[in-house]
Amino acid sequence: MMVLITYDVNTEDRHGRKRLRKVAELCVDYGQRVQNSVFECSLTPAEYVEIKEKLFEIIDKSTDSIRFYNLGKNWQHRVEKMGFDDTYDPDKDLLIF
Amino acid sequence: MMVLITYDVNTEDRHGRKRLRKVAELCVDYGQRVQNSVFECSLTPAEYVEIKEKLFEIIDKSTDSIRFYNLGKNWQHRVEKMGFDDTYDPDKDLLIF
Repeated sequence: MMVLITYDVNTEDRHGRKRLRKVAELCVDYGQRVQNSVFECSLTPAEYVEIKEKLFEIIDKSTDSIRFYNLGKNWQHRVEKMGFDDTYDPDKDLLIF
Repeated sequence: MMVLITYDVNTEDRHGRKRLRKVAELCVDYGQRVQNSVFECSLTPAEYVEIKEKLFEIIDKSTDSIRFYNLGKNWQHRVEKMGFDDTYDPDKDLLIF
């Protein structure tokens, strides 16, 4: 399933900036950064549970916000893009290293 | 339909900061701000076309990114929230002024 993860982390102090860095680093491990605080993550149900547990450990629940939007399997038809875009479709594009 | 709108506007110069302000002001007219650069907008198909046209006029297509995620009608089951949340469900909650 494709899960969109968006976040707002309160970066008023250095603890917040550290949390923000940790959240971003974690999301990079699970998906593609499509905007500064927006990741598209192609996840198994187990991975979805896993990333939620890890994020729950990182954030300050009283100030930080994370939202998960489950776009399902046929997610491509749900997305439209405008302007700058250097993203790829993980279900279609082939990466050659 | 519920459309999630997320954006990254390049704010390196004052023109960018002006564009960011305009994008945010426009999105406020169409939906609920759920994070700093994330709006949930309950739109008719006509409104969806309209906001896209307006955003297209505002942004710098070479540097700014806007993404639209059509969550459909039964969108509530697609959303999970973690941490701070002061949002409401426009299809359920009653606001009394």
